[in-house]
Amino acid sequence: MALSECHSPTDHGDMELSTTPRTQLGRHSERTRADRAELYRVLDEALICHLGVAGDDPAGAPMVLPTCFGYLEDTLYLHGSTGARSLRGGSGAEVCITVSLVDGLVYSRSVFSHSANFRSAVIYGAARPVTDPEEKLLALEAIVEHTTPGSWNHARRPNRKELAATAVLAVRLTEASVKARGGPPVDQDTDVATAGVWAGVLPVNTSYGPPRPCPLLPADVPVPAHVRDR
Amino acid sequence: MALSECHSPTDHGDMELSTTPRTQLGRHSERTRADRAELYRVLDEALICHLGVAGDDPAGAPMVLPTCFGYLEDTLYLHGSTGARSLRGGSGAEVCITVSLVDGLVYSRSVFSHSANFRSAVIYGAARPVTDPEEKLLALEAIVEHTTPGSWNHARRPNRKELAATAVLAVRLTEASVKARGGPPVDQDTDVATAGVWAGVLPVNTSYGPPRPCPLLPADVPVPAHVRDR
Repeated sequence: MALSECHSPTDHGDMELSTTPRTQLGRHSERTRADRAELYRVLDEALICHLGVAGDDPAGAPMVLPTCFGYLEDTLYLHGSTGARSLRGGSGAEVCITVSLVDGLVYSRSVFSHSANFRSAVIYGAARPVTDPEEKLLALEAIVEHTTPGSWNHARRPNRKELAATAVLAVRLTEASVKARGGPPVDQDTDVATAGVWAGVLPVNTSYGPPRPCPLLPADVPVPAHVRDR
Repeated sequence: MALSECHSPTDHGDMELSTTPRTQLGRHSERTRADRAELYRVLDEALICHLGVAGDDPAGAPMVLPTCFGYLEDTLYLHGSTGARSLRGGSGAEVCITVSLVDGLVYSRSVFSHSANFRSAVIYGAARPVTDPEEKLLALEAIVEHTTPGSWNHARRPNRKELAATAVLAVRLTEASVKARGGPPVDQDTDVATAGVWAGVLPVNTSYGPPRPCPLLPADVPVPAHVRDR
């Protein structure tokens, strides 16, 4: 039932993801997806990532925190308050960013073969603090448009004070691996022959409910298309 | 738009979560949920967690991987193949386990105030390898029943060979923090006064689709209640 115990890209032509010791070794290599398009599909569908930084814990535990993200071409962007511990700990450091989608629960005939259908991307790289004002604005637009598409042109854009209060980190999407499981249960023949045990997949769906207007919003402000049609 | 930039429990009576340097400092302390019941609610609702281990990367990046989990009283359990790098790296080590739920997207009148409604738990602790056969079986039952409730009594239970191939780690739920954001956007007064900009919350829902029987399953095997009614 474990998900991606390890991420392992293989060579796959021009669009392959890089193979390094951090992304190479691992189990279930048949679950590897090595092309960059698959990485972008996972990123496009996910609302959040999990950022892992070594941090400064004397006991040695890393810090893993959920956060929104965006990307432009081969660069992933994260943001947060300039005071945030995760952003401070991540700035300039080697980080691991993991993006996970659960597509279904796999009910097999044995509990040992139970599993989850999933897609996940693991990205390693140095987190570069973005200081150039132009790149910073583009990065924030990418994050806003990834998380709430349409908001960059609808809501008020950040002013100088807000920009100064926001830290942005950039991580290259070059050292990455994508792993996925799909399809029905895979059971041993002896288990398949056992009568009466149900096996199959229960799909897991993520959807949006009806928009809830802010209580302070005048009643005549319509829900804009970028929210209504999402 | 950043989610839980840091997790910060506060004193909250008998059921409080522990406060340590790893869980204490942080921003948005008003988003802290300090009682244990809230921790269990987050765990109950989540399908996966993200396990962070320091690993052995010379560059210093931790390893963050998604995995299923379960818990019994104050112990969280993870499992995987005995060959899995994440389980080997985590065994005996201090780990960080993060469980995140996205409840909604917060469209504010400024992009700076955009946010996400979320609940997340961050758990720190030493990952103890579970070797006692009785505890190991209970832990696997907890993981199976957390992820696919009803399967432990429906599917074939693990045999000796399968148990030997499965590693289980235990982490105490004592050093943990829960953080949450809920409710409508919080905008500056000057932004609230701006006409025509929509603000509100788009709820994010996770649901199950119709069960898909395994192609090898005889047509007369009904979908059991524990799958049908989930």
